[in-house]
Formats: sequence, structure tokens, C-alpha cells
Amino acid sequence: MLKKVLLGSLGAALVLTAGILLGHFGIQRGSTAPDWVMDVTQDVDEALIQKFIAEVDNIAIQENLRELTKVPHMATSPGDEQTVQYMLKRWQDPDTGLDQAWREEYKVYLSFPDPNTPNKVTVVSPSDAVLYTAREKEKAYSSDQEDPEVVQPYAAYAPAGHPKVADTQNAINAAPYGVIGVLVYTDPWDINDGKMSDNNETYPYSWYMPPSGVERGSFNTHYGDMLTPYLAAKDDTYRIPEKNITGIPPIPTQPIGFEDAYALICELGGEPAPSEWQGAFNCTYNFGGPGFKPTSNFNNSDVKLDIYNREELKNSANVMGVIRGSVEPDRYVIYGNHRDSWVHGAIDPSSGTSVMLEVTRVLGRMVKQGKWRPRRSIIFGSWGAEEFGLIGSTEYTEEYYSKLSERSVAYINVDIAVFGKSKSVKNKFLFTMTAYEQWVKTPGSDSSSVYDNWIRYFNRTSPAYGVIPNVGFLTGAGSDYAAFIHFLGITSMDISYTYDRTKTRARIYPAYHTAYDTFDYASKFIDPGFTSHQTVARTAGNVLMRLADSLLLPFNCSDYAETLEGYLSKAMELYTDGLAAHMISIEPLQTAVRNFRSAAARLDQLIRDSDLANETPLKVRRINDQLMLLDRAFLDPVAFPDRYGYRHVIWASSKAGQATFPGLADAYTRAASTGLDNDWKEAHRQLSILIQAIQGAAHTLGDTI
Amino acid sequence: MLKKVLLGSLGAALVLTAGILLGHFGIQRGSTAPDWVMDVTQDVDEALIQKFIAEVDNIAIQENLRELTKVPHMATSPGDEQTVQYMLKRWQDPDTGLDQAWREEYKVYLSFPDPNTPNKVTVVSPSDAVLYTAREKEKAYSSDQEDPEVVQPYAAYAPAGHPKVADTQNAINAAPYGVIGVLVYTDPWDINDGKMSDNNETYPYSWYMPPSGVERGSFNTHYGDMLTPYLAAKDDTYRIPEKNITGIPPIPTQPIGFEDAYALICELGGEPAPSEWQGAFNCTYNFGGPGFKPTSNFNNSDVKLDIYNREELKNSANVMGVIRGSVEPDRYVIYGNHRDSWVHGAIDPSSGTSVMLEVTRVLGRMVKQGKWRPRRSIIFGSWGAEEFGLIGSTEYTEEYYSKLSERSVAYINVDIAVFGKSKSVKNKFLFTMTAYEQWVKTPGSDSSSVYDNWIRYFNRTSPAYGVIPNVGFLTGAGSDYAAFIHFLGITSMDISYTYDRTKTRARIYPAYHTAYDTFDYASKFIDPGFTSHQTVARTAGNVLMRLADSLLLPFNCSDYAETLEGYLSKAMELYTDGLAAHMISIEPLQTAVRNFRSAAARLDQLIRDSDLANETPLKVRRINDQLMLLDRAFLDPVAFPDRYGYRHVIWASSKAGQATFPGLADAYTRAASTGLDNDWKEAHRQLSILIQAIQGAAHTLGDTI
Repeated sequence: MLKKVLLGSLGAALVLTAGILLGHFGIQRGSTAPDWVMDVTQDVDEALIQKFIAEVDNIAIQENLRELTKVPHMATSPGDEQTVQYMLKRWQDPDTGLDQAWREEYKVYLSFPDPNTPNKVTVVSPSDAVLYTAREKEKAYSSDQEDPEVVQPYAAYAPAGHPKVADTQNAINAAPYGVIGVLVYTDPWDINDGKMSDNNETYPYSWYMPPSGVERGSFNTHYGDMLTPYLAAKDDTYRIPEKNITGIPPIPTQPIGFEDAYALICELGGEPAPSEWQGAFNCTYNFGGPGFKPTSNFNNSDVKLDIYNREELKNSANVMGVIRGSVEPDRYVIYGNHRDSWVHGAIDPSSGTSVMLEVTRVLGRMVKQGKWRPRRSIIFGSWGAEEFGLIGSTEYTEEYYSKLSERSVAYINVDIAVFGKSKSVKNKFLFTMTAYEQWVKTPGSDSSSVYDNWIRYFNRTSPAYGVIPNVGFLTGAGSDYAAFIHFLGITSMDISYTYDRTKTRARIYPAYHTAYDTFDYASKFIDPGFTSHQTVARTAGNVLMRLADSLLLPFNCSDYAETLEGYLSKAMELYTDGLAAHMISIEPLQTAVRNFRSAAARLDQLIRDSDLANETPLKVRRINDQLMLLDRAFLDPVAFPDRYGYRHVIWASSKAGQATFPGLADAYTRAASTGLDNDWKEAHRQLSILIQAIQGAAHTLGDTI
Repeated sequence: MLKKVLLGSLGAALVLTAGILLGHFGIQRGSTAPDWVMDVTQDVDEALIQKFIAEVDNIAIQENLRELTKVPHMATSPGDEQTVQYMLKRWQDPDTGLDQAWREEYKVYLSFPDPNTPNKVTVVSPSDAVLYTAREKEKAYSSDQEDPEVVQPYAAYAPAGHPKVADTQNAINAAPYGVIGVLVYTDPWDINDGKMSDNNETYPYSWYMPPSGVERGSFNTHYGDMLTPYLAAKDDTYRIPEKNITGIPPIPTQPIGFEDAYALICELGGEPAPSEWQGAFNCTYNFGGPGFKPTSNFNNSDVKLDIYNREELKNSANVMGVIRGSVEPDRYVIYGNHRDSWVHGAIDPSSGTSVMLEVTRVLGRMVKQGKWRPRRSIIFGSWGAEEFGLIGSTEYTEEYYSKLSERSVAYINVDIAVFGKSKSVKNKFLFTMTAYEQWVKTPGSDSSSVYDNWIRYFNRTSPAYGVIPNVGFLTGAGSDYAAFIHFLGITSMDISYTYDRTKTRARIYPAYHTAYDTFDYASKFIDPGFTSHQTVARTAGNVLMRLADSLLLPFNCSDYAETLEGYLSKAMELYTDGLAAHMISIEPLQTAVRNFRSAAARLDQLIRDSDLANETPLKVRRINDQLMLLDRAFLDPVAFPDRYGYRHVIWASSKAGQATFPGLADAYTRAASTGLDNDWKEAHRQLSILIQAIQGAAHTLGDTI
């Protein structure tokens, strides 16, 4: 009896097993998982990230740079067209290219020299003018032009009797005082740690700028094509009359090398300028009033400024490429850099372009080999005409405004990828993604991560995390992220590797925007061996892949709350009493920030309480949309109506120079200075706009219904 | 042996079955369908729609209306507060209420009479003024005030010697000519088919307005709280100075009944007014210049206009309620109506509110009984202070701007649900949803559907479908849909049942905005038995449930293309030559519309080629997002900077009175009239804005990457 029972049990067990197998695998009805269930719940594959990191090759980046710098490639030049072709060839490569790549053209307003037909000639005569000098960037430009791209020392000629010129914050401000032209140079004190000699001190002997180096640049308080604000500059697009252009200097500004500046400045007469104006030249920097020293050979001479430039409408191209997303093709991670340079542009912008091409080579190959396809779509952009005012990227955001606002997860910008040799990564982005950089090792090190290195050189203490890497804010318009963050409200980051700023006074690598920014310079003095470039490519690619592949978007909304709280506490410290004196309460702002914090905490709790990989994919999509659209909620197109493209009420640039809400800070500062009732009204209006935006953002983070 | 085998087989079969069940339901691994698979692919349940339609009860609607009209409920009045409480009670009912209901307060700027302390007194003296009359609405108001809410005949006093007053388009325009006050009345010719006697011709003997009926109204070219444009009117919100208010008449406008108008108009002296100014009174309507007839008892008399109104900041409430969505709670279908009336407001707005309460009762019960939960969330809004300028709904859209723009599928408005007794449904909405109304039968008919009835009374011939029901466009700001469509770009519809307009000249039901708009009037002369109300509730609820439950949103983007093509062909007919004469090509607009059409066709093809219920739920979500956000793509906040809240470049109101693109039409008309270069520039700018918007919308419909 015992034996029978055992056999019976065994038989039943076998039959049960067969049944289980049948039920599990054999029945194709609603209850069997459709194929797509695995896809939609798939998270980032760490092995693929490791594969990407391993394959990023420093020598490939070096060779990209060598190719890109063969010819100068200023926007719309023949060299630029060659670069367009090169980008297209790379991105259309059947083995390592993208799914698709193409060019998009805009007809934009630019300024070019025409040596044969000078446009006009301005003669600036010291005999009836005072030559002023200014060297310090703090004096030279207003604080909202804080980006190195546009901050340059200047020397100004101005008529006598206008002492305010010496106090003007920048060359633009000088014009109303009668300044009719500005000469700009970069003093060796600021850029070369005082080194001046081209015999052995400056490039090609070091990274320092040679005496003949001329740092070019452009100046515009807006960005994008100047004739077509808010409209993509197509052939038939309406263009404003040139006379209606605002935001550019009304007077010519000519950059010169410090050898020429030396010849002029050391001959200046008048009283000595203040000590903070003195520079590296072996002479006293005088105010220059009026004109040159009586003992100078230049006495009674003019400085003649010949203007050769003409404004022209020219076609400028963006080169675009995509990798289609497999699961959420309608979610975009955008990665871009400009393509145009001032001359050869080895570092600016081709270091970034070389990195981008290496990122696309490695990713493209993984796609072409069928080893990888991102969950979300990736869009690559090689922008045109950035040096003239971020034109290519801005026109792109204008043309595709709706599509990009609806679907973009983030924008990653890598322009100047490597600023110099020492060991620190400089990141400017809005969400902390601190964990990522732990994956990437620093150049020449097998042990320390970018994260460790970053925290060592540039850190801050967070209430939530303690000491963490510091992250700058993208409040300016220094590179192509501007339209993405300020105009579209797309979460953006800007990545680069930079030198140890405690070791030099140079605000940027000394060959910046000069003809000496070449492959030779880059490979000898910025990144020999291109391992820093490699590190940037790994870091950017790592972030890019995680943004594209993570089931849950790697954004932390509580970190945003921390920033708002920091801004709030600064605003309360500076403005509470002054506002109260005008019957304006700051309390609703406190409430708004508190509401934002608790909405963020609730969303974080929801995320912690969820098992997103096993719940409906519409749940993680919903949470991701909340995170993706968070920056969008801070846009207000009527907040700053006179400032093109600045719609983000948290990150807009500010003149007040305080780490707080920009609109409120600027309006308060103005009201406190003028005391005018209308200005206090504007401060109140800015406060209300801000409160509504923060409350609105909190609503988007809160319970969805 | 046989017996044993049989038993054994039976046992094995039982065990096998147990195994199958276990394997099928008991093992949670990748290959077994998770619970949520069924939910996310669920489409609308037609049986539930039928259940809803069957349960909508005409007598319940009647009793809602009886309750709502017990007291007058002008915005912020004690009666309004009673109505708020009633709405809350209904929506919080444990058996038939919503998931949640609450009130939201705004502090808004209103104007109320204060009988004890008149604000000021204006004396208008015919002895030095001409009394002008105007009756025709075409003359009375400019064409962009095309909504019945604000179109009223008027009579104006003005100083002598200003013949242009007679040509002014509206009372506002009269002020610059010296008019200091306006008396408004509704002529029996227009509203009563000439009937005037209160002995047997007018209410309570018929639906016609009695001689003492005063049609109130408000006038404002903007909408929303006047002191807080773009900001929700909270306690601490910044308010513009009252003197900066624009868009309201600079002179008082007083509505009077036609019995009072008769007494004045028939005594007017001067030349006879043109024939189109003559009305139903048994006298000649004279221009009244100067003053009354010499033979009149009024000769040498003044007309004294006492102004009692005072501006006040008062709290106004929206009552909000929600049914949470089960699958996509972050997608909102919004349904709303205003709650405030001028007096008892039986038809305007309580016919709509009674319908809304019946819709929520039936849906609420289905939810409370566990029989139904919508896929998407449904938000109900009972708006405050609509009669003063759509204030409640507008403040709501300002406060929740980000959340609503990101997530709203559609807004349904049912204000005046039933205009009169005869058989036609008037719909104004943007997407054709023609199939729906076939489900709903017309009142008192067992055979013909609302669709059939609609097509019979109000149809058009579509290139794609042949003869179909006609759908008006929501180009004005006649009810609370304005902020949703014009400011937020949310696809909107406005539903009502109306009388046969071939049978009467009345532009609206005659008791509109008078004290005679009562329950008695409604139940005797507008909808005895409340079966038309029932039909509207069924139609609106049917649409609401489909918007909330359909797997694929019931929007047809190719129908949108048809509208754009109609607008384009009108624009080409009217403007091609004039634009070409100013070197502006209309061709890029043709290209844009063509691109939109092919993007729409491709999306339709994709939908047809898809098996959405069996593909990843992220695919249908993606397509739904394309459809949901289509109207959003037409928003441009810099298109009409001087017009509050008008951002939709297709549906914005226009003065040009042409069925074409409003911005282009207005700018072209102006330029053609002034010939000024700047005006032609604006026409070109409007054309470029339009092209970019249509191209942008086409991009959102096109391949997602």
C-alpha cells in the first residue's frame, strides 16, 4: 500500500508539472505576457554602459580633432562647409553612424570683414579725446555677462570731460558718454599670469597667449538671429528692420593683441589709473587724458580705426543626427555642440565636436551591430554660427518649439570639452546626478573617479547630502544650452574638464578665441594624449545613456527644492524688510517654496514605494513626465517681455549678482535704487510671477489628480 | 481494472487542471501577463455608455433646476454662496458624488450697485446734445464681439455736431466723440419678433420678453480678473492700478427695458434714422438731433443717469470635483460651466449646471457602486463670476497653467444647455466627433438621433465626408471655454440645444439676462418636460465618457487639416495679390498647410496600420499625446501681445470677419487700409508666425523622430 501511494503521488506530481508547464507556456491568451512587456519595463543595462566607457578611445578623439582643425571654419566659410560634410560623412557611416543624419539651413544675419571695400572709417582723435583704459573684467562688463565668451577687458577712447566713462560697466555703456569706438585687448596679467615674451614664455613654449594673439568675440544681450526673434530664419521669414536691432554695441569694438595695446597704453598721458586697472605692462597705466603723453612719439597723433565689416544674410547649417528610441521614441535626449570657430578653433569648439564624434562612433557602432538601441530617442546637433550669438541652436529651438517642448527630457552641451591640463571636471547643470561620475575614472588614474576628483576640487555642503560636488547654474547664455534652458525650459547640462584654478589667474585657456587655438596647441598644452577628452566623452556618454535608457529618469526633484530654499533664504535676508516697507509680503513665497518641497518629497516617496519595473508602464511614464516637465513649469513668457528668450523665472540671468530669484532680485534692486512707485509695483509683479511659477511647479510634482 | 483507470484518469485530469490553473495564474514571471496588461489596453465599454444614457433622467434635471433657481445667485451674492454649498453637497454625496470635491477662492475685481451711496451722478442734457439711436447689432458692436453675451443694441447721447457717432460701431467707440453715457435696450423687433404687449403677447403668455425686461450684460475686450492679468487673483497677488485697466467702456452703459426705451425714442426729434435702424415701436426712430421733439413733454428735459455702481474686490469661488482616472490619472478631461447668474438665471447658467449635476450624479453612482472608473481623470468645474468676464475659469487656468497644459485632453463647456423648444443641437467644437451623436436620440423621438437632427438643421459639405453636421468654431470669448482654448490651447467644445432659427428673428431666447429667466419660464417655454436637457446631458456625457475611456483619443487630425485648407483657400483668394504687391509671398503658407495635411494623413495611416490594443501601451500613449497636444502647437504667446490670453493663432477672434487665419486677416486688413509700411511689416510678421505655427504643428503630428 505504501508503494502504491508513493507511485501515485509521483505520477500526480508529474502530471501536475505537465499542467503547470502547459498552463504557463502553452496557453496564448490575454493572460500570457505580450512581447512588449519586457521592453517597456527594461531599465538601463550597466554592462552596456561599461562597454561604452571601455570603447571610448582617446586616440580616436585626437584624430577627430586633427581632421576638424585642418582648415579654419568660421560660420558659413568654405571651411565650415567642409566641416559640415565631414560631420555628415561620420554620422552617415554605415558601420559607425547614426540612424539618420541631415543638414538644416537657416539664412542668418552675420557680420564679415570685406578687405576690398571697407564699410566705413572711424577716426578717433586723441587730440580731442581722452584715452581711457580698463583691464579688470569686473569693471569691463556688467555682471549678467558673466560668461568668458563675452567678458573681455577693454580700452576706450572718449571725449574729455566725461569722468563717468571710467565708471561705466562696459563698452556699451560708454557710448552714451561720447565714446565712438572701443579697442579691446587681453592683458597678460589676466590671461598669462604676467608672462609676455614670445622668446620663451608664450606659445609655442607654453600655453600662454603670444603678444600677437587677438581674442575675438561677439557681443549681444540677446541671442539667436538678430533679425528674426522668435521665428526660425527661413528664406521668406519676416525680418525686422536693421535699425530696430537692440542689444548690440552702437559703436565699433576692435580686439587687438597685447603687443599693440602695449604700444598705445604705455604712451597714454594723464593721471594714473587706479591700482586695480594696472596690468602686466612695465609702465604706469594712465587714464590718458587728453591723448598721449606730450613726450610720446604719438603726441598729436590719431588712432585710426578702419571698419571693414559688412552685415550679410548668409546660409548657416545645423547638422542633425538621430538614434531612434525603441520604447519611447517620442522622448528626446538632445546632445549638441557648435561647429563654427573663430579661426581653427581646436579647443573652441572642436574639442567638444571631437568628443561628440567619438560618442556617436561608439554608440553608432553598438546600434549598427544590433547590440543596443536606446529606450528614448537621441538627437545630436552640430550647431552653426554659435560665435555670432548662439544662432544655429536658437533657430532650431524656434523652428521645432512645440515638438521639443513636449518631448525633450534633457539637453547636454559639450562645447569646450577640456580647458586645461589639471584635474577637475567643471559641470554646470540643473539636476544633480552625482552617482554617475563614479563610473568614470579620471585621466591617468586607475583608482579615483571623476566624482572623487570633482568633489576634491569643487564641492559644496548640501543640507541633504553633506559634502558633494558643486554644480554651477546655467544662468547665462555662454553656449548653445541657452535656448534650451531659458527659452524652452528643457533641463540642461554643460560638461567640461578644466584646470586647477588655484594655480593660475587665467580666466580661460590663454589661446581662447585667438588664431593660436590649434591642434598643435591643444595636443601639446591642453591635453597631451587626449585622456581628458576621453574622460569627458565617457562622462557625457554615461549621462546620455542613462538619460536615454533609465526606466525612471535620473532627476531628483528634491534637489531642485534645495536650490529654491537656498534662493528663498537669500531673498528673505535681502528683501523682506524692504518689501514690507512697501506693503509687499514675502510670506506667500515662503509658502510656495514649502509647497514645492513637500510635493517633491511626496513624489520621492511615491517613487520609493513603487516597484516601477513591475507596475504599469504608464505609471513610470507619468512620473517621468512629472520630472521631465518640471523645468517647463518655471517658464513664463510674460515675465521678462523685453528680454528675448528668457522665460525661465529661476535660471534667467540677473544683474543683481545675488544667488537668488533673478526677476525679483533685479526688480527689487531697481526699486530700492530709484524709489519709484512703479518700480516697487514691478518688484511686486515679479514676486507674484515667481510665486505662481513655484506653486505651478509644485502642482505638477504633486498628486497627478 | 477499468474502474481504476477511469478513476485514475479523472484524478490526473483534476490534477492537470489544477496544474494548468496554477501555471496560468499562479506564477508571476516575465512570461506571464502582469495584471495591468488588461487595464492598459482596455477600450471604451459601450455597455457602460448605454447604461449612462439610459440613466440620465429628465425629471432629475428639472429638480436640479428648481433647486438652483430658488434664489438669485449673482457672483459673490449670498445666493451664490448657497449655490456653492449645494454643488458641494451634491458632489460630496456618498452615494452619487465624485471622488473629491472642494472650493477654490479668488479675490476678484467686480462692480456692484450700492443704492445707499451712489457713486456719482451723470446728467446728460439733450439741450446741448443729440440723442442718437441704434438698434442693429451689426451697427452696435464691432465684429469681434460676436457673442450674444455682449451684443446689444444701444442708444447713445452725444453732443451735437458729431455725425460720426452714428457710424461708430459700438458704444465704446462713441466715447471719443463725446458720448458720456449709453442707454442700452433690446428692441422687440430683434428679440420678440415684434411682439410688445404684456397683456397677452409676452411672458407669462409666451417666451417673449415683457416690456419691463432688462437685458443685462458686461463688456470687456479681455477676459479674466481685470486687475491680475496672467496671475491668479489670490489675496497677495500684484494688482495693476485701476487706471491701467483697458478694454472696458470709458463711459457708463445702462441697460433699460423696451418700455422705457419706447418712452424716450418715440419722443426724439431730428431727422429720421436710416431704415435699418427702425424697430418695432409704432413711431419713427429719429436721430434725435438736438434733443427731444419740440412738441414732446420732454422738450427741454434732461435724461438723468444715476450711477450707483462701485468697484469692489470680492471673493469668488470655483467649485471643483474630480473622478480619478484608473490607468492614466495624469490625463484630464475637463467639464465645466459657470454657476453665477445675473438674477435667477434659470437658463443662463443653471440649465447647464442642472445638466452637469445630472451627468455627475449618474457617473458618480457608477463610480461609487464600483461599476466604472474612467481610464483618464475627469475634472468638473463650477466656475464663479463668469458674467463679469469669465473670471472663475480664467483664474483657474492661470493658477494651474502648467498642470493643465501638460495633461488636459479636452474641455467641454455646457453653459446655456437649451436655448429653446425646437429640434437642433448646436455644437461649437474643434474636432469632429460625428459618430457619437448617433448614440443619442432626439427628445421625444425613438428613431432619429441627435446626429440626424443636427445634420438636418445645420450641415455643411465636407470634401472628405460629403454632407455632415456643421460645427462652429470657438473663436470668441462667449463662455468659459475661452481661457481653455485661447490661452491654454486645450481642444474645447461647447454644447447646447437650440431652437429652429428659421422660425424667429430672436438672436437668443428672449428672457436672456433678464429677471424673467426663471424656473417657471424655463419649464413652460424653453423645455417643458426637460427632455431637451436630457438630450444635452446624454450627448455631453457620451462625449465625456469617450474622451475619458477611449484607448485612442477620438480626435481626427485630418479634419483639422480640412479646416486649415479652407482657411488657406480663403486667404489666398483675399490676400495673395495684395501681399505679392509688397513682396510678400503666400507660398510658404501653402507649403505649411500641405505639410500639415500629409503629416495628418501619415498619422492616420499609422493608426489604421496599428493594432493598438495589442501593442505596447506606450504606442497609443504616444499617438494620443500627438492628438492631445495638437492644439497646443498653435499657441504663440508673442503673436498678439496686446490681447490678453489670445495665443491660438488659428482660433483667435478677428475683426476682419473672414473665415480665415485671424492674425493675418486683421493685419492684412489694416495694412490694406492704411498703406503704411509698418502695417505691411506686421502683416508679414503675422504670416511668418502662422507659417511657423502650422509647420510646428505638422512636426508634432509627423514621425515622432
